[in-house]
Amino acid sequence: MGDTISPTAAGYIYGRSLPQRFYCNDTIFNEDVNFLSQTQWLLVDHSARIPQAGDYFLFKCGKESLIIVRDRSDEIHAFYNVCRHRGSLICLEPTGHVKALTCPYHAWTYDLSGRLIGASSMPSEFDKTAHALKRAHLRVESGLIFVNMADGEPPSFERFIERHRPFLAPHGFDTAKIAVQMVYPTEANWKLVVENFLECYHCKPAHATYCAVHSADKLLSLGAGPGSASGDLATKFDAELAEWEQATRTAGQLVGMFGDDVDAAYFQGSSRTPIQKGFLTESVDGKPVAPLMGSYVAYDGGQTACSFNPISYVMASNDHAVLFLFAPRGPLRTDVITTWLVREDAVAGRDYDSAHLTKVWDVTLKEDKTITENNQRGVLSRHYEPGLHSLHEKRISDFVAWYMLHRRPTPTDMVDEDRIRPAS
Amino acid sequence: MGDTISPTAAGYIYGRSLPQRFYCNDTIFNEDVNFLSQTQWLLVDHSARIPQAGDYFLFKCGKESLIIVRDRSDEIHAFYNVCRHRGSLICLEPTGHVKALTCPYHAWTYDLSGRLIGASSMPSEFDKTAHALKRAHLRVESGLIFVNMADGEPPSFERFIERHRPFLAPHGFDTAKIAVQMVYPTEANWKLVVENFLECYHCKPAHATYCAVHSADKLLSLGAGPGSASGDLATKFDAELAEWEQATRTAGQLVGMFGDDVDAAYFQGSSRTPIQKGFLTESVDGKPVAPLMGSYVAYDGGQTACSFNPISYVMASNDHAVLFLFAPRGPLRTDVITTWLVREDAVAGRDYDSAHLTKVWDVTLKEDKTITENNQRGVLSRHYEPGLHSLHEKRISDFVAWYMLHRRPTPTDMVDEDRIRPAS
Amino acid sequence: MGDTISPTAAGYIYGRSLPQRFYCNDTIFNEDVNFLSQTQWLLVDHSARIPQAGDYFLFKCGKESLIIVRDRSDEIHAFYNVCRHRGSLICLEPTGHVKALTCPYHAWTYDLSGRLIGASSMPSEFDKTAHALKRAHLRVESGLIFVNMADGEPPSFERFIERHRPFLAPHGFDTAKIAVQMVYPTEANWKLVVENFLECYHCKPAHATYCAVHSADKLLSLGAGPGSASGDLATKFDAELAEWEQATRTAGQLVGMFGDDVDAAYFQGSSRTPIQKGFLTESVDGKPVAPLMGSYVAYDGGQTACSFNPISYVMASNDHAVLFLFAPRGPLRTDVITTWLVREDAVAGRDYDSAHLTKVWDVTLKEDKTITENNQRGVLSRHYEPGLHSLHEKRISDFVAWYMLHRRPTPTDMVDEDRIRPAS
Repeated sequence: MGDTISPTAAGYIYGRSLPQRFYCNDTIFNEDVNFLSQTQWLLVDHSARIPQAGDYFLFKCGKESLIIVRDRSDEIHAFYNVCRHRGSLICLEPTGHVKALTCPYHAWTYDLSGRLIGASSMPSEFDKTAHALKRAHLRVESGLIFVNMADGEPPSFERFIERHRPFLAPHGFDTAKIAVQMVYPTEANWKLVVENFLECYHCKPAHATYCAVHSADKLLSLGAGPGSASGDLATKFDAELAEWEQATRTAGQLVGMFGDDVDAAYFQGSSRTPIQKGFLTESVDGKPVAPLMGSYVAYDGGQTACSFNPISYVMASNDHAVLFLFAPRGPLRTDVITTWLVREDAVAGRDYDSAHLTKVWDVTLKEDKTITENNQRGVLSRHYEPGLHSLHEKRISDFVAWYMLHRRPTPTDMVDEDRIRPAS
Repeated sequence: MGDTISPTAAGYIYGRSLPQRFYCNDTIFNEDVNFLSQTQWLLVDHSARIPQAGDYFLFKCGKESLIIVRDRSDEIHAFYNVCRHRGSLICLEPTGHVKALTCPYHAWTYDLSGRLIGASSMPSEFDKTAHALKRAHLRVESGLIFVNMADGEPPSFERFIERHRPFLAPHGFDTAKIAVQMVYPTEANWKLVVENFLECYHCKPAHATYCAVHSADKLLSLGAGPGSASGDLATKFDAELAEWEQATRTAGQLVGMFGDDVDAAYFQGSSRTPIQKGFLTESVDGKPVAPLMGSYVAYDGGQTACSFNPISYVMASNDHAVLFLFAPRGPLRTDVITTWLVREDAVAGRDYDSAHLTKVWDVTLKEDKTITENNQRGVLSRHYEPGLHSLHEKRISDFVAWYMLHRRPTPTDMVDEDRIRPAS
Repeated sequence: MGDTISPTAAGYIYGRSLPQRFYCNDTIFNEDVNFLSQTQWLLVDHSARIPQAGDYFLFKCGKESLIIVRDRSDEIHAFYNVCRHRGSLICLEPTGHVKALTCPYHAWTYDLSGRLIGASSMPSEFDKTAHALKRAHLRVESGLIFVNMADGEPPSFERFIERHRPFLAPHGFDTAKIAVQMVYPTEANWKLVVENFLECYHCKPAHATYCAVHSADKLLSLGAGPGSASGDLATKFDAELAEWEQATRTAGQLVGMFGDDVDAAYFQGSSRTPIQKGFLTESVDGKPVAPLMGSYVAYDGGQTACSFNPISYVMASNDHAVLFLFAPRGPLRTDVITTWLVREDAVAGRDYDSAHLTKVWDVTLKEDKTITENNQRGVLSRHYEPGLHSLHEKRISDFVAWYMLHRRPTPTDMVDEDRIRPAS
């Protein structure tokens, strides 16, 4: 974008948005895709998408296509969708069912665990065992499929997931089904999509529906993480929260939260907080939208929020959950992929109504798409300069600092670490 | 485009079109946008577009969006459409009416003179007065709005406009209204659009309608500025012109012309010349298209042409006027924005017919769009080479020389000044 | 694409597909277009497309547009479609009939042999004879139009064509007509289109229609050139071929083949081989699709295949022929232009049915488009690596080696010649 990069600092200061190039430059975008896919465990879908051996779906990130497929031992694999012969895509449909993975070009055939089992007329020195499909790292936790594309050893999954387990446990995601999946293609850099998701300072001006569902005090006090409000507002919400926590704990349910700081490898967090007095679940009217899930036998009005990494989230009520993945597609393009889960045995039309189930987030994500695209357009101006975050945007300040500390910068784009940490 | 650039000369010679890279290269295009917007006063619209306090329209040039808005003291401002918070666009519609400029993202609010008057929950050290909207330079002359985007002091508006004042004065543009505005998106570099506008050598092959309105002798003698014909043709037209000037001067109206040479900062010109014997105004049949404007009490058959800079023009008859702006959008894309003015109190349907009013230029500009796009396609060939201008293209020779002298070249694209001036 | 290029080797080894960058890089693509158009004679169409003086068609390759036009002496020329004045395209329609070549911009007029015959109002020193249209090299052989765009002397056409003459002769292409022309736009690099065309290893998995027409033994034994099978399969086909050759030679018709190795300038080949027992011509049912052409008085069940260069081919049966040109359009875009020829006096609807005539290749080329586009998508993965060719892909191994030896590499992309030749 023609910007001049100082050799020792990136023009970034803690508490402000990023310099323009981080929101549009091609090289930085390619570095970002590698950074996210190689250092993080991305939440790509729920295993209920592929219940039978031979079921598969494709997951796309940057230029890569991955085949996520279940084998006959019920193990799920992530294979790069590239034939080891001359490189053709092997699976062409977004989702499907196969007996084996057969390349449509020359019929090279791989079994469901990736071994090359058919390749006719090859020279005698050709070694089939050396031509298995290349694979990404994959783990399943509570039915959620996580993928990592590190070239060598992936980061520890155990260390990645352990703190979320108590939050995931009561929801019974391993016996969930997918009710609806929607994609909101957004003409903006993935970091603007993340920033938008990490604060609720914009909720009042931009999200009437969402604000009708959630307590206004909570949105400001917690919308950008704990400590995103102060003074009377914080005091008022602290009392509301304490009251709900007391009742919920008494009913035997989980409460509480944790959140990483900017030095952590994953920038994670999880929490259980109340939706709003009188709201049983995160629906437009607070009324149930589906049968209770997992171990819940009554509504406690709480919402579980798990942040696995800046582009992977779960938001769960007692009777449904929503998975979010912000898939980077290009410097100015991100796909917001959203998946609604309900109980495995729930029947559409009888036990839940898809329109009712999805309304809060469908309305909100459409609003966010517009907001974020207009943010991107303004950021492309020669006259954009990084702006100061409000108190309600603390989590963005931290996300941006975390990104600047952990991303893999080119030698000419080094930062002065003193400038990107919060003052201590 | 893979061209080799000599370190001391750009491969350009006076009297020829430019080397290929000037018509397609990304870097040169970005330099051009900065050059035009920072050194010239661009004619962006007529003030009648925003008659009331709070009325605004957006002006786009390259990647920039400007909010042109009238405040409560009737002053018009040009603000960069970029919120000082996290950079969102503030105004989203091409035109509208607002009480204040409120960003749709977090509701930061600026008054109509650009001061930040609302930004909730900011840290205590935050200084609102340091976060007014950034502004471009703006001047209004005879109702015409001119904008300049220099980072510091703009070039003198007085020096820029003074020579045009006598030509603008009789038309009463300050009491005009906008009858029609049309945009002709053209897939060509802005310099090819300008070159097309600066000569009438192509009128006979390409513009039957335009040629039926204007005297053939004039089109060749003046189509590329004074001196664009010689010999018998020039002699014949000189006589026609002298006769019309005599009569018009007698009737108390302005005649004459001036034009800058290649060394001038602005490359301006203005003239008053006859349309064609029997034509009262520049309409297909020469008959009036609207009530007389300004100080005119009778038709004198003259046309006033003001060239403010290579991308801003006014062409005015006694009863209407047309504003032209060739807005650069990309190396191969220019928007030709055209605005027809009539008298403020003229009523559509009663006093003027929009189709009749716009026909001559609407037909001609559609023809020019086709011509210019085909010119661009040919210029992209490896076998294009700069061609010699005809006698009727003198003004292009001068425009190109002016551009090469005044643009801000990168160090590797310097020119040998001896080669780009007309031989003296 | 961000790949690292070793200064001494391109990461290419004989017998494998190419490294990723050769299938997508912009610079290499531009080098390829120059290499193909300047060192090869491209088969652009049949002369029956322009039977009358003044008939023309446009041929596009990369960014170039060529006017292929017949003059009044019945000579055919290839002119760059760029006016010598300011560079406009001269001819705008893909095909047409003109008295002279008149630029639509300023009416500069060239006669049908390219001489500038009209350019009004030019300065006295202007020399019309120095402003003829620039031309590419053009030759016509048996009605087939070949073009070369070398800046200076083209490669010898005689040496290029002489070995094909005996194969072309019996088909009477100089008295053919064009029955149908189709374009299959393919989102893939031209080299992937060529590779697909040079082997029949993929025919069984991908081309049911094509496989029903051609002997399976032949497709594998000859599909990637002579020697593309071995062992029993080759022995079996050799016997079939010998039997057909004996009968055909007895009937006085041509049999045999030749093929260049990787060191040859043109990478050509021609052959006459049987279609399949019981098939008179290359149609879905083996039955005639048009009247016999040229000197044929009976069907001999043979097919003549001429490879002029990697992007130009003819496939001819006794009663029709198909011309192929794989026109490079961009790094990831190739137009497959296909032209069906029948006897000059054949009448559509009476002597041939267009759907029947074109079915085998129309079905096959649509399948190839899909295959090749999916090949391209996979090759763009970070995890693609050059794969080993099967025995039935020998001709690809040789094509790729020929390309690496003859293309014009940039200094940083040199190859170690020892690694790109077949082991001897």
